[in-house]
Amino acid sequence: MAFYALIMAGGFGTRLWPLSRHDRPKQSLKLAGKRTMFEHAVDRIVPLFQPEHILVVTGAEHVEDLKAQAPELPDENFIVEPVGRGTAPAIGLGAIHLRREDPDAVMAVLTADHFITKVERFRELLLASEQVAQAGHLVTLGIKPTSPSTGYGYIKQGEQLDTVNGFPVFRAERFTEKPGAETAFQMLESGEYSWNSGMFVWRVEQVMAEFQRQMADFYVQLAQVEATLGTPGYEPTLKRIWPQVAKQTIDYGIMEGAEDVAVMPADIGWSDVGSWASLVDLLPVDEDGNVVSGPHAGIDTRDTLIFGSERLVATIGLEGMIIVDTEDALLVCPMDREQEVRDLVAKLAEQGKGVYL
Amino acid sequence: MAFYALIMAGGFGTRLWPLSRHDRPKQSLKLAGKRTMFEHAVDRIVPLFQPEHILVVTGAEHVEDLKAQAPELPDENFIVEPVGRGTAPAIGLGAIHLRREDPDAVMAVLTADHFITKVERFRELLLASEQVAQAGHLVTLGIKPTSPSTGYGYIKQGEQLDTVNGFPVFRAERFTEKPGAETAFQMLESGEYSWNSGMFVWRVEQVMAEFQRQMADFYVQLAQVEATLGTPGYEPTLKRIWPQVAKQTIDYGIMEGAEDVAVMPADIGWSDVGSWASLVDLLPVDEDGNVVSGPHAGIDTRDTLIFGSERLVATIGLEGMIIVDTEDALLVCPMDREQEVRDLVAKLAEQGKGVYL
Repeated sequence: MAFYALIMAGGFGTRLWPLSRHDRPKQSLKLAGKRTMFEHAVDRIVPLFQPEHILVVTGAEHVEDLKAQAPELPDENFIVEPVGRGTAPAIGLGAIHLRREDPDAVMAVLTADHFITKVERFRELLLASEQVAQAGHLVTLGIKPTSPSTGYGYIKQGEQLDTVNGFPVFRAERFTEKPGAETAFQMLESGEYSWNSGMFVWRVEQVMAEFQRQMADFYVQLAQVEATLGTPGYEPTLKRIWPQVAKQTIDYGIMEGAEDVAVMPADIGWSDVGSWASLVDLLPVDEDGNVVSGPHAGIDTRDTLIFGSERLVATIGLEGMIIVDTEDALLVCPMDREQEVRDLVAKLAEQGKGVYL
Repeated sequence: MAFYALIMAGGFGTRLWPLSRHDRPKQSLKLAGKRTMFEHAVDRIVPLFQPEHILVVTGAEHVEDLKAQAPELPDENFIVEPVGRGTAPAIGLGAIHLRREDPDAVMAVLTADHFITKVERFRELLLASEQVAQAGHLVTLGIKPTSPSTGYGYIKQGEQLDTVNGFPVFRAERFTEKPGAETAFQMLESGEYSWNSGMFVWRVEQVMAEFQRQMADFYVQLAQVEATLGTPGYEPTLKRIWPQVAKQTIDYGIMEGAEDVAVMPADIGWSDVGSWASLVDLLPVDEDGNVVSGPHAGIDTRDTLIFGSERLVATIGLEGMIIVDTEDALLVCPMDREQEVRDLVAKLAEQGKGVYL
């Protein structure tokens, strides 16, 4: 029995446009300091896992870039999806690779594009969660909510099952998608909910059994790919099958209907950095409430995010704005309109301005 | 007797930062179309003046750039001030050059960095004003006010002296510097005031007499330079004398105290383009009230000036903003704070960020 990590690194992250692009996805951005998000994701876990036990699932567009960022990982540990079909198929694909290595493996599904500031605590949580997974639970790593966020999924905690290395373990009673503001507030107040971090720990055999039970069609497709593992038929088979796979998320496809789901809520200083405004909570804030990266000269500028490059960004009389300056595109947008960055990216695509995507 | 033009092209134009720079002053900017402000200034008058009769006063920093923009003008018609001392000395220096050419000359003092949309009418006004100057008046070209601007100087019109080619000529009763909002409103309502365009037409001998009477110290300095005109001593003398000259504007130094000042108010579609917001009145406005130069993608963006370069400027939820994007610096500022661009430039100088000036 061994402990493996599967880093999910397939996203694009349009909400961080214009910094994130099709060929420069969120996991490859340097949002804090000199390391990319993916490099941080690998750095966090190398003390826990042998490099051979760290796998990465990503798309063909990103794999070379990611390999260059993590040269310590073996080449064959990068699992390439011909097309992205959502988190459930990506995890399934990782799982069959692991099952072939070690049918008794415990796998931690981790994210490549989230911030975790309390790294030591995160590692302790991972080690504790492995024990819970060994005991027969599908573990969701939960996050103790710090605000009534409407941007995250929530998990209702049921009875407490255990405490492992100081971390409480609850039965997961219900998964709730991004709630409305009032519901989110009530969930925060009740103390009975965790945020869904998108990180999971489980025995490979157990999650495969759930795939078989809940996503039977996909399981058949997956089995066809599994049969070719380690043979020259693998890649052609994957390329043939994968486009036919239905898109599905692990939350809808597996977690909501799974048996024996546990949630381990912890305070690990986590953020999914889902949008520009979320960076304000993560980066150093100056005395005027500004978060500034790059040269800046301001008069009467407050609570503003200036994510620049080499160019000087000069601001006068701004409050609560987002300014993101890249080599070929610039974004100016009030903080409370940031969700519309996605619409803007869609508009650029419509208008044939794909060069900026 | 001949008619000469003296184009004043010595300014820097800090209020149009970051487009305007120390080595790229306002007169060299392409604010509308493909011609610079200086090129427009020359284009406007070439049908009226022989190239030999068009002189340019500027600084050493700008002269090569301006010569390249107006290759039709003789090299020796560019008069270079070693240091800028304000409009009065610049005009005095031009006047002694003209007096040497033709003591009976009438000179039109024109600007290099203003917009004039009704060019035909402007030329008719110039021709009419020459007659008024011949008749013994120092003519100020006035602009019929179209708004209660607090950014311009005003001239009170006294009795009507004449009408020339359909242009009324008034005695200029009083020069008023940039007024407060209420005063400006009253002046507009009264119909008795013109804006001071900074353009003047007069006989050289008459303005020289005013220099002698009202700026006696400067006149002595000027006479020393005049004595060396056409000799190898000219440049060294100018370089020695000019730094000692007191700074003065033509309005304070000459016009306010001069005799026989006339004002000819006309509607020539004039703007001094003193700041970014003034461009909104001059450039084409789209259906959302935006003035856009360069690639732009916007959601819910109104009454905003986007003066870009090659970079895409993407905006969401903006109203009444100014965004100016240049190769090495970017400005974001609400329209109603634009006067603080000057403060920002001063701040950059203070902070040792001269590279952006």
